[in-house]
Amino acid sequence: MKGNVIAEISIVPVGTGDSGLSKYIADSIEVLEKKKDLSYRLTPMGTVIEGPLAKVMDAIREMHEVPFTKGVKRVVTNIKIDDRRDKVSSMSSKVQSVLKRRPSIKT
Amino acid sequence: MKGNVIAEISIVPVGTGDSGLSKYIADSIEVLEKKKDLSYRLTPMGTVIEGPLAKVMDAIREMHEVPFTKGVKRVVTNIKIDDRRDKVSSMSSKVQSVLKRRPSIKT
Amino acid sequence: MKGNVIAEISIVPVGTGDSGLSKYIADSIEVLEKKKDLSYRLTPMGTVIEGPLAKVMDAIREMHEVPFTKGVKRVVTNIKIDDRRDKVSSMSSKVQSVLKRRPSIKT
Amino acid sequence: MKGNVIAEISIVPVGTGDSGLSKYIADSIEVLEKKKDLSYRLTPMGTVIEGPLAKVMDAIREMHEVPFTKGVKRVVTNIKIDDRRDKVSSMSSKVQSVLKRRPSIKT
Repeated sequence: MKGNVIAEISIVPVGTGDSGLSKYIADSIEVLEKKKDLSYRLTPMGTVIEGPLAKVMDAIREMHEVPFTKGVKRVVTNIKIDDRRDKVSSMSSKVQSVLKRRPSIKT
Repeated sequence: MKGNVIAEISIVPVGTGDSGLSKYIADSIEVLEKKKDLSYRLTPMGTVIEGPLAKVMDAIREMHEVPFTKGVKRVVTNIKIDDRRDKVSSMSSKVQSVLKRRPSIKT
Repeated sequence: MKGNVIAEISIVPVGTGDSGLSKYIADSIEVLEKKKDLSYRLTPMGTVIEGPLAKVMDAIREMHEVPFTKGVKRVVTNIKIDDRRDKVSSMSSKVQSVLKRRPSIKT
Repeated sequence: MKGNVIAEISIVPVGTGDSGLSKYIADSIEVLEKKKDLSYRLTPMGTVIEGPLAKVMDAIREMHEVPFTKGVKRVVTNIKIDDRRDKVSSMSSKVQSVLKRRPSIKT
């Protein structure tokens, strides 16, 4: 069964001369707002994306390009893909299955 | 200025014979519920922790031990530390600074 | 200047019932042996790949599929991409530039 | 059985104004050269460290501090820990077990 994967992407522009990165992150997430087949959620440490593997990977490549269009010369991008094919998985089902074990956990 | 760091931890028990991992995750987060100096938040791809670097690292080491106490023989743990010393940073301030740039982003 | 990127991939099959993963890793690297445009190197913690971004990403997707063809039901794949566009970068030039600073470092 | 873990650390100084990072990497590895209980190896994408978990974690914290002593204001550090307790594991045994499956693989 090939359903949706859950991925996380974190883009770090290098050598910008400014320790703030929020403008690059905001611009890269604009890519996701235009993708009808993907869901996403910004977290304090990255952006979580849900969708078919091929489309998630394409979106990640587009997001990775964004800082270069703003003049950045080097980008280090970390990606984690959680791909489960024995049952349907989603961003919310992953969190819910942990909460079922321990409802006191904060999300 | 040495304030709080924001970290993310993701623990993957290996060789368990079961593709579900939520029970190990729930148990490892129990460690965080007991730490008065740390804040945390479960996301679909990991657990984000905020606090002083030394205490965050100690908590991460404790969390990493949890699956072994449940019989797991191998654990692969990924940690990302975002440590900013030119201004106060927090889980919520990081998200807010991106939202200020682009209020339509989903969190 | 859009040259080669250096990437690292680490594939963790989940729920296999065996804490050894070398057979899955060996099979996934077979994908790289067939790619004429890519260089790679196995390290103790992952596989480093050098080549054009689009081809590296395609290879990573193929590698990620391999454990599923062997019956694995869940795969967690970590990818890091280091993409520098102000100068030519390679696996060996990255190591050499550190060694130039400190020749005693072990590789 | 609690033996050695194999870890990988990758330190990315942020906002330096220079897209080259080799000087920070060289300085952070100096920490490892002084540790008698640890082995390490520089790769194109990070530094692999082998040793007891507590000592590896202490070394990683020291390495993470180094760029701040050179004036860097923000550091993003990625750490991966592979901790196997059913058999002795080492940097070289991990590579060897893959090569045994497929001797043509390049290291």
